[in-house]
Amino acid sequence: MSKKGILIGIAGASGSGKTLIAKTLVESLSTRRVAVIQEDAYYKDLSDLPMEERAKTNFDHPDAFDHDYMVEQLSGLQRGEIVEHPVYDYSIHSRKQETKRVGPHQIIIVEGILILAIPELRKILDIKIYIDTDPDICLLRRLQRDIQERGRNLDSVLKQYQGTVRPMYLQFVEPSKRYADIIVPRGGKNVVAIDIIKSKIEQLLTEGEES
Amino acid sequence: MSKKGILIGIAGASGSGKTLIAKTLVESLSTRRVAVIQEDAYYKDLSDLPMEERAKTNFDHPDAFDHDYMVEQLSGLQRGEIVEHPVYDYSIHSRKQETKRVGPHQIIIVEGILILAIPELRKILDIKIYIDTDPDICLLRRLQRDIQERGRNLDSVLKQYQGTVRPMYLQFVEPSKRYADIIVPRGGKNVVAIDIIKSKIEQLLTEGEES
Repeated sequence: MSKKGILIGIAGASGSGKTLIAKTLVESLSTRRVAVIQEDAYYKDLSDLPMEERAKTNFDHPDAFDHDYMVEQLSGLQRGEIVEHPVYDYSIHSRKQETKRVGPHQIIIVEGILILAIPELRKILDIKIYIDTDPDICLLRRLQRDIQERGRNLDSVLKQYQGTVRPMYLQFVEPSKRYADIIVPRGGKNVVAIDIIKSKIEQLLTEGEES
Repeated sequence: MSKKGILIGIAGASGSGKTLIAKTLVESLSTRRVAVIQEDAYYKDLSDLPMEERAKTNFDHPDAFDHDYMVEQLSGLQRGEIVEHPVYDYSIHSRKQETKRVGPHQIIIVEGILILAIPELRKILDIKIYIDTDPDICLLRRLQRDIQERGRNLDSVLKQYQGTVRPMYLQFVEPSKRYADIIVPRGGKNVVAIDIIKSKIEQLLTEGEES
């Protein structure tokens, strides 16, 4: 393969276990040659809008992300370059001044709900994975995370779930499953699937050493 | 792993591309250490029935197979043993007198529509794969195979499809997808998925050499 960085996309619903799988892979491989890039870092900067307007944004819609910028940076990483990766401040929905230097990496795991829904992103991904966790389990995890860990209230989480998370899942995320090369059921607890993906990455790392 | 033979199950609808994937894997690995076992070889011997009765059997129902015998032989292969594998004569729906000596093999790919639908089979499989091809594409392939290659007529193929293939798919095959470790969309043409599975097998073969 002439590419210097190999892009592995991991898509799936919010709460499906994408982040856990990406983290598990990187930690188990324990090498600087593998990095994770999150779609969330490419949320559009909303600092031009008044604060109340920012919070009303549909953060599950493709328009909330700067996917062009994401494709540009991922293509750079694929060519073996270093990029100035954006850092997002979720509390005020805007991009920080500072950036994070990323690259070069031999394997770049790209993780986010719409990774397979955007044709330009799909086109550059070398391996496309979709995490297919039952929707009730995704909601359950979201409730645990947003209420128990982040201290939000039940009413606001359920309102957001019904208002944007679920409709955008049905419109964009679920239909993108059809573009996956492999589908992983049961999310982060599927140790056999994680082990299979890990084997492929280890093989790619070994080939990289030899070439 | 203390097992001497590792069982990799590949399930999916008739026409999904299971057989092609199993064949592609074995041929690309080109080693005696990998073998394929087909569920079809374990069809029950119907020689006690009159010929017209045999043809009326529902060959897509679990009862048509001797899964106990299959589990027994697969467990033997898993322990590194040699087994006398049955040979089936499809034309008269009965088991031949002759058997085929199989084993020992380091990797045994087990392929069939009900591989993941039978709890006892599921339990002994080390890696469970489901080939998830759209049903219309499965029907299309079945038509090409049965009419163009095997010379059957359209009416009989469609009657069998509506009478047993489709209802048994809905009742047994499709629900068994939930037990898979990984799901492969698009069947035999999914080269990225086949390559990922191949990587895992190559890793297992290397580990076997070292131990």
